[in-house]
Amino acid sequence: MSRTEARTTLALPDRGEPLADRFRATRSLTESLLEPLSEADAIIQSMEDASPAKWHAAHTTWFWETFLLRDHLPGYRLFDEVYPFLFNSYYEAEGDRIARGRRGLISRPSLAEILGWRAHVNEAMDKLLPDPAHADLIRLGIAHEEQHIELLLTDIKHGFSMNALGPAMWDAPACRQPAQCEGWLEHPGGIARIGHQSDGFAFDNEGPAHRALLEPFALSRRLVTNGEWDDFISDGGYDDHRLWLSDGWEWVKREGIAAPLYWREGEQFTHAGWRERDPDAPVAHISYFEADAFASWAGARLPTEFEWEAIARGQDHPGFDSLAGNQLNEAAPPLPAGTGELFGDCWQFTQSAYLPYPRFRPAKGAVGEYNGKFMAGQWVLKGASCATVRGHSRPSYRNFFYPQQRWQFTGLRLAQDR
Amino acid sequence: MSRTEARTTLALPDRGEPLADRFRATRSLTESLLEPLSEADAIIQSMEDASPAKWHAAHTTWFWETFLLRDHLPGYRLFDEVYPFLFNSYYEAEGDRIARGRRGLISRPSLAEILGWRAHVNEAMDKLLPDPAHADLIRLGIAHEEQHIELLLTDIKHGFSMNALGPAMWDAPACRQPAQCEGWLEHPGGIARIGHQSDGFAFDNEGPAHRALLEPFALSRRLVTNGEWDDFISDGGYDDHRLWLSDGWEWVKREGIAAPLYWREGEQFTHAGWRERDPDAPVAHISYFEADAFASWAGARLPTEFEWEAIARGQDHPGFDSLAGNQLNEAAPPLPAGTGELFGDCWQFTQSAYLPYPRFRPAKGAVGEYNGKFMAGQWVLKGASCATVRGHSRPSYRNFFYPQQRWQFTGLRLAQDR
Amino acid sequence: MSRTEARTTLALPDRGEPLADRFRATRSLTESLLEPLSEADAIIQSMEDASPAKWHAAHTTWFWETFLLRDHLPGYRLFDEVYPFLFNSYYEAEGDRIARGRRGLISRPSLAEILGWRAHVNEAMDKLLPDPAHADLIRLGIAHEEQHIELLLTDIKHGFSMNALGPAMWDAPACRQPAQCEGWLEHPGGIARIGHQSDGFAFDNEGPAHRALLEPFALSRRLVTNGEWDDFISDGGYDDHRLWLSDGWEWVKREGIAAPLYWREGEQFTHAGWRERDPDAPVAHISYFEADAFASWAGARLPTEFEWEAIARGQDHPGFDSLAGNQLNEAAPPLPAGTGELFGDCWQFTQSAYLPYPRFRPAKGAVGEYNGKFMAGQWVLKGASCATVRGHSRPSYRNFFYPQQRWQFTGLRLAQDR
Amino acid sequence: MSRTEARTTLALPDRGEPLADRFRATRSLTESLLEPLSEADAIIQSMEDASPAKWHAAHTTWFWETFLLRDHLPGYRLFDEVYPFLFNSYYEAEGDRIARGRRGLISRPSLAEILGWRAHVNEAMDKLLPDPAHADLIRLGIAHEEQHIELLLTDIKHGFSMNALGPAMWDAPACRQPAQCEGWLEHPGGIARIGHQSDGFAFDNEGPAHRALLEPFALSRRLVTNGEWDDFISDGGYDDHRLWLSDGWEWVKREGIAAPLYWREGEQFTHAGWRERDPDAPVAHISYFEADAFASWAGARLPTEFEWEAIARGQDHPGFDSLAGNQLNEAAPPLPAGTGELFGDCWQFTQSAYLPYPRFRPAKGAVGEYNGKFMAGQWVLKGASCATVRGHSRPSYRNFFYPQQRWQFTGLRLAQDR
Repeated sequence: MSRTEARTTLALPDRGEPLADRFRATRSLTESLLEPLSEADAIIQSMEDASPAKWHAAHTTWFWETFLLRDHLPGYRLFDEVYPFLFNSYYEAEGDRIARGRRGLISRPSLAEILGWRAHVNEAMDKLLPDPAHADLIRLGIAHEEQHIELLLTDIKHGFSMNALGPAMWDAPACRQPAQCEGWLEHPGGIARIGHQSDGFAFDNEGPAHRALLEPFALSRRLVTNGEWDDFISDGGYDDHRLWLSDGWEWVKREGIAAPLYWREGEQFTHAGWRERDPDAPVAHISYFEADAFASWAGARLPTEFEWEAIARGQDHPGFDSLAGNQLNEAAPPLPAGTGELFGDCWQFTQSAYLPYPRFRPAKGAVGEYNGKFMAGQWVLKGASCATVRGHSRPSYRNFFYPQQRWQFTGLRLAQDR
Repeated sequence: MSRTEARTTLALPDRGEPLADRFRATRSLTESLLEPLSEADAIIQSMEDASPAKWHAAHTTWFWETFLLRDHLPGYRLFDEVYPFLFNSYYEAEGDRIARGRRGLISRPSLAEILGWRAHVNEAMDKLLPDPAHADLIRLGIAHEEQHIELLLTDIKHGFSMNALGPAMWDAPACRQPAQCEGWLEHPGGIARIGHQSDGFAFDNEGPAHRALLEPFALSRRLVTNGEWDDFISDGGYDDHRLWLSDGWEWVKREGIAAPLYWREGEQFTHAGWRERDPDAPVAHISYFEADAFASWAGARLPTEFEWEAIARGQDHPGFDSLAGNQLNEAAPPLPAGTGELFGDCWQFTQSAYLPYPRFRPAKGAVGEYNGKFMAGQWVLKGASCATVRGHSRPSYRNFFYPQQRWQFTGLRLAQDR
Repeated sequence: MSRTEARTTLALPDRGEPLADRFRATRSLTESLLEPLSEADAIIQSMEDASPAKWHAAHTTWFWETFLLRDHLPGYRLFDEVYPFLFNSYYEAEGDRIARGRRGLISRPSLAEILGWRAHVNEAMDKLLPDPAHADLIRLGIAHEEQHIELLLTDIKHGFSMNALGPAMWDAPACRQPAQCEGWLEHPGGIARIGHQSDGFAFDNEGPAHRALLEPFALSRRLVTNGEWDDFISDGGYDDHRLWLSDGWEWVKREGIAAPLYWREGEQFTHAGWRERDPDAPVAHISYFEADAFASWAGARLPTEFEWEAIARGQDHPGFDSLAGNQLNEAAPPLPAGTGELFGDCWQFTQSAYLPYPRFRPAKGAVGEYNGKFMAGQWVLKGASCATVRGHSRPSYRNFFYPQQRWQFTGLRLAQDR
Repeated sequence: MSRTEARTTLALPDRGEPLADRFRATRSLTESLLEPLSEADAIIQSMEDASPAKWHAAHTTWFWETFLLRDHLPGYRLFDEVYPFLFNSYYEAEGDRIARGRRGLISRPSLAEILGWRAHVNEAMDKLLPDPAHADLIRLGIAHEEQHIELLLTDIKHGFSMNALGPAMWDAPACRQPAQCEGWLEHPGGIARIGHQSDGFAFDNEGPAHRALLEPFALSRRLVTNGEWDDFISDGGYDDHRLWLSDGWEWVKREGIAAPLYWREGEQFTHAGWRERDPDAPVAHISYFEADAFASWAGARLPTEFEWEAIARGQDHPGFDSLAGNQLNEAAPPLPAGTGELFGDCWQFTQSAYLPYPRFRPAKGAVGEYNGKFMAGQWVLKGASCATVRGHSRPSYRNFFYPQQRWQFTGLRLAQDR
């Protein structure tokens, strides 16, 4: 498959497809993203937050083997007895695992062996895919692998950015950024219905559905751009303590932060290497601390996750989960009219802490460790990014990160009281 | 003044008093708490979170000098040009200051010199107290000093706890703990009015007043006790990862946490030294991580700050801000019927992250650094503790700490969905 | 080339060969050691002390390019302008370089590209090799690459040891360990001639030759064995503070040290994976702290570097620099009578700090950074290990490491006062 | 006692006095140095290397109680059962002790209680002092307390230096610094007798006496001065990596070192507060790394400990252990002709690592932990400083510190090969 095809493939899976097709498309997408990588590329781990590409390929396979095949396919035997130790991520209930910071040392099994494992598991899954009894777990597994596809992309970008050679994963077309739509989406306030409510798949943290009370507000139709961020920098934004949260100011001073991640003079690092920075493109790779400081500087604020979702639900967006804009493309692509305002390009920080919804209960067993145990100290992000698999996100989707993290495609959209 | 008197004094200031009287009573209370301390006791700093008692006495004085006398009393000259550097806490707008962890090195000025400074400032303040133009700032200054009185008490307790001699600040009477009231306070849900709304003083973070939507719930009439915590320990609460948030579990493992702070076999450390632990007294000195894990173990949850406040406002508590229970007494004192459920003994963790209320705007200038800039990564606590100055707290009061901190008198009260 | 051949090759270079032949044999040896490694194996970096195998292959090439080709071959152009930044180790005079801990992130250039660079440099070197004007620098470059060959072997061993799969670099023959020779080599004391004194190559730190005054002493004919170390452990050696230097005791407690590196129940990790531990084989992978504590426990001491060298020079060892014992073989190989006592198997700790010899002066320029600037806090080791290239070491050779390091093949030989 | 007297007293004890008199004079000297200190001054601990003044007063008392009274005075009972835990320094054989970094938290017992303990122990010691069986231990105890007197002075200086008020312990007379003597002391080399050899007291690490072989060398008659150090700075000494050991260069970069400790523009911090810096006075408060770099810059080197001692023994210095120069005076005092070259003013770095002399054996029991266990990673300093008790040092004396430490009065004297 060519590099261009790999990028196209990222947008392939579709919610309308039969589950077995989606399973295969997702597995295949992971594998296609490994193609531009050498065996060495696939093992680098540039920080504890990031994991090697090979590890993502293996961990997603471990998930299928552990939660589906081992538990539900009679007679299935583990491909390798040591792999669960090597490729469990954080499931305490599933036993010991290697320290997170040592994932970059697993040179064996080789990438070829992991691909062999993937094929083996894919084949074994053929026997479980038709059985509706496993549909829920299979949907969870697909969503899980979709999340790791995005992490694989952001992690390898971070790893490559550490290399003075500035390696490219593929050639990106120089895409013209049209003027973004302007203005504000107004909301009159009132009681909004929040959280997952349809029959489709959702993570446990998106429910239960519940009501939230909103005051009148407005949400910007567009994301903050690189050009506006340049203005923030020129105006001394990184030097004015009054704009910053106390923890954020300490982070700025300690780490010497003075620009978004991956910025250097006039350029930014992308999957296609160092590229000229487009002032009209949305700013990305900023932390919550930076988003909050920018909003203060701009005389606005971040939206709450409830405001964001209320707007998303109120919109006429017939195709928001099959966005053409949601391509793996670092410069923001042209967005179809009326749909692209909220999804695609960048995850958007809200000012909502990542906490349980009313009456939230984690699922039983190891699967229950999926989301609930991370509800401390993180912030909710809404939308989707250019690295999000098409159809993965939805209005109720809650992404979450710590306030200093910024290696994801994270940006911001302003809100105002009305 | 005797030690018993010192404890009585802690309860003296009353909201009904003229402002000048409250000012003098608060200043005098700080000074009375220094009396049992030697010059050496007053300088120890046992961790970066804590400050020396002398530093609290000085910093509160710096606050009056900086925000009232320097800015508003014509002709006032700083008592000492170096003191602002030594005793500024975190106000970036007020310039440089010594590193927080070095406050324990300020052996000079002596305690006597600090007391001299206090007298000098108290006297100068006499000229500003009658002027209603300064009333708001004076109320802020009093509330600020009241907060530092509580910190002084919790910080010196932490410092003393490090000493193998187990020093006592004073002799506490062995107080009989009556059976706490039992049962649940029921709330039907609906829209509650939240935040500060009367004419009285409040911190900026308590407003603006706004509406919050509640689902039906119940709040325990009493705090969780030492005896119940013993059961949690016996049942393996500190060893079962399923009860813990991920960050909490890491904290437990890294720090070797296996009991509340200040516990040892059958005893707990108090301002009166090591004392037998009363199983019927409220548990104190626990972190948010522990409170959350306990609630999970108990099949309940922590209340939100909105639920807690709604209950507090719905209660008939004619005297909740002159609680007899709100004494500096480490074993929970007898509570007057119908009032003691919510205030006194311990600050109570909520599951609400410390975030701005809708339409919140920090004040301009250095005073604006008071609360808003700490709105990241901390949790709201409600109520008041045995070390809170009587009349300091109120239903809208929002205390806040990081999830691992536990040197304050922090406890928990369970909630349940209905 | 087969794996067995790779091991044989390690012993190939010979001091008697023409310089050009030695150059080619050394370069070829490095390359042969990369053969059993995958692209991923060649990039892992398991700690800051260790470097990836590919990095060793590149850095040694950088050395030839920088100090020979760039400076002495007219018209030579750098193979790649970025490589000096990526592959400089510590030469401040040669400019910036990537942080040491990030060497494991250099997935590009690929291993194939590095091998291409090596071929390019090897070919260019052909023009300089015959010129006697460069002989000294060429000898230094060969010695430098030999050192990195040993590091490559110990670093990849450390990396593999982190992998739960316990990968093997090659199959080692199960080699029978004959009883080591017993007894003591006696020395009457007096003035010994120390340091490099022949015409052959030596590092700057081996000179100037000078006199040292020795008291009568004896040096053990053999190395301490695994079996003796087991006795040390059984006797509580790791639990008795009286045996340890203060810094060593702190290290033992902090790191939880209770056995040599790479030991587990009855086994030790080798280049051939986990193997049964031979009680008669020399103990390896111990720190200075451990060596010193063992000597105290045994009622003996470590020799000084001067005592060791005096013995080495006094021996009749016609072939000590072409030792059959000096093979890359983790279980100690059979040693030829009369030669194997001092060289091979393990580097041996002395009680001498690594300091300059009288009248030592570092060379001018970047090459002068070779050894002198490390003369602080390290200890001298003498001899050679099973991973030392045959002919690399000599009686005046001074290896050096920090007292807690133990990922090299480090062992000990006891001494006694007479 | 006045402050001036306190300084005079420091010079009082004399080796010729009866042992009981020396004991009392030493104890009294410690107490006199506490006089200028407040209770708060006496408890500050500015870094882990330093201890509070009160702790020194207590620890020295613990030494007498533990090694003399407890073991040798029938019927003696510990003054307080908890004190050994609080005031043991590092003697593993004497059981647990508080973490070193927490000595600054021991506000109780009070300074008055420690002085009471001192009086109690002094009185009890009256019964042991006349018994010659204890003379050796008593001499050790006196020497031990003398060492802590110097530490008390350097530790309180470090603590005061952290205070923006720049407190003074006493007023120092502005002392005129005469021109130091110039030139070199020549030594022809040969075999020197090294180590303690008379009947007087010496620490275990000063023996056994042994021979050392010296090459011809010269030692500067004077210490390097502040003015010369200014030249080193002006010449870019702190910016030129070529002058530095690798570990030293890393230390300079990491800590931002650009001048000796306690220097600021034109001034230096002293026991008398901030004072103008005298360019003719010896430079003090430098690390080994700095001393070594300066020597390289100056085209010289540091002497070995053997060279230094050989010169000291060869000199006609009838009164070197009753030096007038050895006063507690931060600006170098006038030195009596012919004696002051080596002792007084500053401890002088040698290039000798702190290692055991041939045939050194630590004493049995807890006293054996005195010196031997620190023989790793430290450097030997010779001479004595202005804060050394008169008569404490001698030619064989070996002081030792880590290469980055510089809060002692440490300076340097150059040497050259001949």
